[in-house]
Amino acid sequence: MKQLIEKANVLMEALPYIKKFYGKTIVIKYGGSAMTNESLKRSVCMDIILMKYIGISPVIVHGGGKEISELMVKLGKQPKFVNGQRVTDAETVKIVEMVLSGSINKELVGFINSNGGNAVGLSGKDGNLIISKRLSKNSGDFIGGVKKINPEVINLLDEKGFIPVISSVGLGEDGLTYNINADLAAGEIAAAVNAEKLILLTDTPGVLDKNGNLIPHLDQAKIKKLIKAGVIQGGMMPKIAAGLKALNAGVKKVHIIDGKIEHSILLEIMTDKGVGTEIV
Amino acid sequence: MKQLIEKANVLMEALPYIKKFYGKTIVIKYGGSAMTNESLKRSVCMDIILMKYIGISPVIVHGGGKEISELMVKLGKQPKFVNGQRVTDAETVKIVEMVLSGSINKELVGFINSNGGNAVGLSGKDGNLIISKRLSKNSGDFIGGVKKINPEVINLLDEKGFIPVISSVGLGEDGLTYNINADLAAGEIAAAVNAEKLILLTDTPGVLDKNGNLIPHLDQAKIKKLIKAGVIQGGMMPKIAAGLKALNAGVKKVHIIDGKIEHSILLEIMTDKGVGTEIV
Amino acid sequence: MKQLIEKANVLMEALPYIKKFYGKTIVIKYGGSAMTNESLKRSVCMDIILMKYIGISPVIVHGGGKEISELMVKLGKQPKFVNGQRVTDAETVKIVEMVLSGSINKELVGFINSNGGNAVGLSGKDGNLIISKRLSKNSGDFIGGVKKINPEVINLLDEKGFIPVISSVGLGEDGLTYNINADLAAGEIAAAVNAEKLILLTDTPGVLDKNGNLIPHLDQAKIKKLIKAGVIQGGMMPKIAAGLKALNAGVKKVHIIDGKIEHSILLEIMTDKGVGTEIV
Amino acid sequence: MKQLIEKANVLMEALPYIKKFYGKTIVIKYGGSAMTNESLKRSVCMDIILMKYIGISPVIVHGGGKEISELMVKLGKQPKFVNGQRVTDAETVKIVEMVLSGSINKELVGFINSNGGNAVGLSGKDGNLIISKRLSKNSGDFIGGVKKINPEVINLLDEKGFIPVISSVGLGEDGLTYNINADLAAGEIAAAVNAEKLILLTDTPGVLDKNGNLIPHLDQAKIKKLIKAGVIQGGMMPKIAAGLKALNAGVKKVHIIDGKIEHSILLEIMTDKGVGTEIV
Amino acid sequence: MKQLIEKANVLMEALPYIKKFYGKTIVIKYGGSAMTNESLKRSVCMDIILMKYIGISPVIVHGGGKEISELMVKLGKQPKFVNGQRVTDAETVKIVEMVLSGSINKELVGFINSNGGNAVGLSGKDGNLIISKRLSKNSGDFIGGVKKINPEVINLLDEKGFIPVISSVGLGEDGLTYNINADLAAGEIAAAVNAEKLILLTDTPGVLDKNGNLIPHLDQAKIKKLIKAGVIQGGMMPKIAAGLKALNAGVKKVHIIDGKIEHSILLEIMTDKGVGTEIV
Amino acid sequence: MKQLIEKANVLMEALPYIKKFYGKTIVIKYGGSAMTNESLKRSVCMDIILMKYIGISPVIVHGGGKEISELMVKLGKQPKFVNGQRVTDAETVKIVEMVLSGSINKELVGFINSNGGNAVGLSGKDGNLIISKRLSKNSGDFIGGVKKINPEVINLLDEKGFIPVISSVGLGEDGLTYNINADLAAGEIAAAVNAEKLILLTDTPGVLDKNGNLIPHLDQAKIKKLIKAGVIQGGMMPKIAAGLKALNAGVKKVHIIDGKIEHSILLEIMTDKGVGTEIV
Repeated sequence: MKQLIEKANVLMEALPYIKKFYGKTIVIKYGGSAMTNESLKRSVCMDIILMKYIGISPVIVHGGGKEISELMVKLGKQPKFVNGQRVTDAETVKIVEMVLSGSINKELVGFINSNGGNAVGLSGKDGNLIISKRLSKNSGDFIGGVKKINPEVINLLDEKGFIPVISSVGLGEDGLTYNINADLAAGEIAAAVNAEKLILLTDTPGVLDKNGNLIPHLDQAKIKKLIKAGVIQGGMMPKIAAGLKALNAGVKKVHIIDGKIEHSILLEIMTDKGVGTEIV
Repeated sequence: MKQLIEKANVLMEALPYIKKFYGKTIVIKYGGSAMTNESLKRSVCMDIILMKYIGISPVIVHGGGKEISELMVKLGKQPKFVNGQRVTDAETVKIVEMVLSGSINKELVGFINSNGGNAVGLSGKDGNLIISKRLSKNSGDFIGGVKKINPEVINLLDEKGFIPVISSVGLGEDGLTYNINADLAAGEIAAAVNAEKLILLTDTPGVLDKNGNLIPHLDQAKIKKLIKAGVIQGGMMPKIAAGLKALNAGVKKVHIIDGKIEHSILLEIMTDKGVGTEIV
Repeated sequence: MKQLIEKANVLMEALPYIKKFYGKTIVIKYGGSAMTNESLKRSVCMDIILMKYIGISPVIVHGGGKEISELMVKLGKQPKFVNGQRVTDAETVKIVEMVLSGSINKELVGFINSNGGNAVGLSGKDGNLIISKRLSKNSGDFIGGVKKINPEVINLLDEKGFIPVISSVGLGEDGLTYNINADLAAGEIAAAVNAEKLILLTDTPGVLDKNGNLIPHLDQAKIKKLIKAGVIQGGMMPKIAAGLKALNAGVKKVHIIDGKIEHSILLEIMTDKGVGTEIV
Repeated sequence: MKQLIEKANVLMEALPYIKKFYGKTIVIKYGGSAMTNESLKRSVCMDIILMKYIGISPVIVHGGGKEISELMVKLGKQPKFVNGQRVTDAETVKIVEMVLSGSINKELVGFINSNGGNAVGLSGKDGNLIISKRLSKNSGDFIGGVKKINPEVINLLDEKGFIPVISSVGLGEDGLTYNINADLAAGEIAAAVNAEKLILLTDTPGVLDKNGNLIPHLDQAKIKKLIKAGVIQGGMMPKIAAGLKALNAGVKKVHIIDGKIEHSILLEIMTDKGVGTEIV
Repeated sequence: MKQLIEKANVLMEALPYIKKFYGKTIVIKYGGSAMTNESLKRSVCMDIILMKYIGISPVIVHGGGKEISELMVKLGKQPKFVNGQRVTDAETVKIVEMVLSGSINKELVGFINSNGGNAVGLSGKDGNLIISKRLSKNSGDFIGGVKKINPEVINLLDEKGFIPVISSVGLGEDGLTYNINADLAAGEIAAAVNAEKLILLTDTPGVLDKNGNLIPHLDQAKIKKLIKAGVIQGGMMPKIAAGLKALNAGVKKVHIIDGKIEHSILLEIMTDKGVGTEIV
Repeated sequence: MKQLIEKANVLMEALPYIKKFYGKTIVIKYGGSAMTNESLKRSVCMDIILMKYIGISPVIVHGGGKEISELMVKLGKQPKFVNGQRVTDAETVKIVEMVLSGSINKELVGFINSNGGNAVGLSGKDGNLIISKRLSKNSGDFIGGVKKINPEVINLLDEKGFIPVISSVGLGEDGLTYNINADLAAGEIAAAVNAEKLILLTDTPGVLDKNGNLIPHLDQAKIKKLIKAGVIQGGMMPKIAAGLKALNAGVKKVHIIDGKIEHSILLEIMTDKGVGTEIV
């Protein structure tokens, strides 16, 4: 009985955080190891289901780099990257879309729904959600930017109790398909749905300083300095950009957290100190 | 961090129960020591607030015997009981109402609201909630039965996010005030709002057998036998009656639990085995 | 038949006033003799029920000085007043609450509901309706001011056809109970619900000049003068303060009327000249 | 003041009737002298406006025999009647429609709206309200029966605060216009909108016995006898038929009252005894 | 089959226009030959029904000069016109109302409803739709201007799937009936309902230049010049005035088109070039 | 102009069919050549967009056999079929899902949305739309049947103006992914959404008799005979089964039509005779 009461006390400790985020939208960029490790995948999905039940509105945005490369290789196509961005020709974008919208998105949806949630998978094409534009001048390049977010379909599904799970593929005004950086897409979507928080899952404990130590808080000024100093670079760059985009649009906080920790999303929400790096 | 993850796991363990009761109404008869001990009072209120936040609809019904007697004594009136029922003359029913609707009800509402909940106190007069009738033939006796429950005001407040807290005082069709047994009122209200569960807080671990051991499950047949054998008697009688009333009206389960255990309501809901005696 | 037609004509005369106040909210501060005389009590309640049926939204706020003092004396406690305000220590505020929220409030609700209305009694604690603060610096003093009105529960009940009846007891941010002047509470509530009118029942024909003659109209300038001259003083002061508060918040008119006249509320609403003193 | 209080008491006397009919629909067949005498016309319209304001839903159905005949004569056409029914050829039905839907209907609407009501005039064509069929086998005869009532437009307008005023002209499934007996139309409409009451205004005190005395109550059996005896005949026949039609469809009461008494509608509703003949 | 596919292609060609006007309101001033020629009448009504089904909200406003004059003559009254406006004395306005609201309006409603539409006829009196004022200083003159449009009843009916058909008769604040120029009424209504387009049917191909050639586009400057030059004059003047009124109130485009062409409304909407004169 | 009027007349001819299907749901099984030929694909999509705009609710269900086989071959896996059903092992179902939900579904959605529609792609996993079960006893076989359809997400999207496009992949109660015959899925979905019609696109003119002539009408009795005679067989079998399933659940009509004809869907809906085979 004593152990039970302790458990009840843990639930009680969660109450202030439940109150704090009740009715609020939290956009989660899902990626990295949390997407490939079965146990972490399960932990992320359970966190999302719990959030929905206790009155928080999670919106999931995902990419899927590793699985794309695997299918490309199987199909005899060599993945190439320039400045961390995948070189995306017409053939590649077709593969990207199949993997993101057909494989990863539906796997997530299936997992959530098999565990008592009720998710609906979307790509940026569905409901004209992400209107995209070619970033490069090269008409053979299908890396896209975000021209406009139409969040109606997200809001509709969220209000009716569904969990939107979104693959970062966009629809161009030219009717073509574009591969969009998932961090970027998450930042834009967080801005468009007036999210309370944007949480970006990574494979590091957060933003690290030059000695590899976690920086718990960042603001715009510090970020500029760290970029200049080359401390923020590589895959962290689009996350930082997405975060700033979201913050400027009114999102209250952005968190870059370690997806390799079990229940890292829940911990970020349900503890005062949070985990990882917070940008304000 | 490890400790945090354990806490997250406790939250995860709660998920199946949250799902199970999501959107369901649970009527709680609040009484006994849980009403006088400050720490227990707090634990009950926090359980109720948490329930509301995670999507369960708690409806609280309370009596308040001890405090009534205290005020009577202060006012120079000797409390009398016949068969466990308070003898309620015209003067007494006025005291009963002041204590129940003015003191205990508002104290509960104030406590819940000061801790982040949003309760509204009601008596059976408000919104014609409990239409009552005199039980005795003696016109100087103000012990009332339930003639009709009008649950509109409960349902309205519940839907709009408020927690209804109800004192067991009824309005007669003669315009007079009646003192209603709170167990009875709770059973009738559970029936009228189509509650999923009725939880009755007592000062014992539940229904006990003749050796004083807890009987975890009861059904109508067993109950008859136990009453005949005199094992169920006294203050347990109206609880059993209220439970049967509720069950016959479609309430799924009735629980008689030990209000002296901290978070006993939460434990009843959030564990498979539950606590106390379950009637089906 | 002729007499009947005359009655029909009386109804017809009421039509312009029904139109004028259709869908509008009128806050009524109920107090004084109208609260203790059975016939007047009945007349006030019937006026309120009629108003609700013909499409006006009455909101009742009441105090209950006399009954509080009576219970205090019965409990061996001497009522004391300083500047017309009841000295309210911890013990007293408990008595105040019992009398206001448990006795008077429920009596009114019961009376209205027994006569075909549908009232719901509230205290300032219910739905966090009146968030209060200690007025004095003395921590043993429980006379409260109004920090914030949360009118959601009033509006909700009113829209759904219920008549809100409110006792002037507030909930402090410290979780404690405060005794609030009922005139003040009525003024603040009138302001918060965008009332069309605030009607304050008194035991005099309205505001009287130094010769004891009724002053039918007052404005802010005149009021200042009369206060300076000591003509407005004593129990009329909080009524005037409440009126000004309401007017400044957009309430169109405030009326101080004689609660000792039968149907004085109805007469105020249903005649051009009105009764008592009008403040604009 | 005393006189004022007496007036207030008259309003109070109305309260039980206001309660009784609150939210109920009352269909009024308007016709006879009440339609031509300016003072009676005004009294009927004011009754209707008052009803709407106090929460009753009046639906007006009117004919207009006299005015039709006048226009016919002006246009050089001799009005003819067979068994009390106007002989209606193609030319006549055009005149009927102009007078009913264009003149009388709009005059009523204009009068109500100029006096603070909000009426919308309809004919049986609007919103396919009265689908009609030729009663005679003669294809040159445009007297119509009621095939179907589509009450959607009435209900819509009523719910949104408008008073529907309906001229008894129907639309045939052949696309042609039919002249419908207004009593009949009122009975069918009362049935279709689940009216609480149907009130038929006449130029007599009600149904009279062979000695010319008012019969206050009638039922189906008595009616049969009176028809057989030739006591009920002529213009009273369609009123009786309409009443029976309505009663059989669930309308609670039908009243045939004297439209020559001022405020006869209000008196019928607001007094226990009512006026005229009641059919149950 | 080939012919069928061609038909399908015609439907496909309509798609961009359906999209363009989906959910938009288009006010149509119906008049001239299209009102007297049976085939054109049918074509106008069918256009309106189709518009409603494909998601456009048509609102019809009509006059009826010719038919009014005919009835006047039959009633022995000589129609007179000054500056193209009918001289309207008290007797005339009664005839105007009968013809417009009773004859033409109901004929249109009947026609639409017999062909699968669901129209409701209104005059400017219904729902206080057109509050009018006497234009002349002569109290025996019943030509009215528009003081205020109350579009609630139009919007209500439109939203619920009905097609509003409005006769240009207004209700004065003096309770009297006014004859309003139908072009003017249409312009004011288009302004009040935020119409996308106002289409005015005439008996000419549109606005013609001094050589009798159609002017396809007009703006305010050109209009001034053409009025000065006497090219725009007579019956075209109120149409131009109505158009400018509507445009200034935010209506996007005004079209003056040839009602003698079959389906001219549909052609105006469903072709790029449109027909007639467009004012922007 | 004459040509324009002819076009208007074509639109007019469509009106009765628009009325007939207004507000009704039509489920379209999209497959065969119409899915691979660019011009036919465009024609199908335009038909769907038009339907939505004119008030019909299209729901699209698609398979994608050919493209699946192509990707399998590219990945070095030999497509195998037994009785017309694709042999679907664990590796194959992953490919099926990628192609159906990631490639074909999103291509359709992108095409519709680029042409002015607003589609949302779903798989049977989204919103738990198609709860599936393994058909074979072989646990390595992922051909699924339909256990339950949860049509909430379809209905929600449809009501809010979106066009649901559904890939025939189901979610097992075991959490696994199942390949479902698209005809079967379409039939079950038509049944679950109470469709008015189910249209199955094929590569033949409809059901053919033994001489290869089209059979325009079929009923259950005829179908049995034709199956017995071996005339209905192969790929036509699941279409017939889906049709019967839908009819038995209340769908009014099922049509098997030739997807190789341009605008065949529109022609089926907008002509009396329809095209292909109708089952009733």
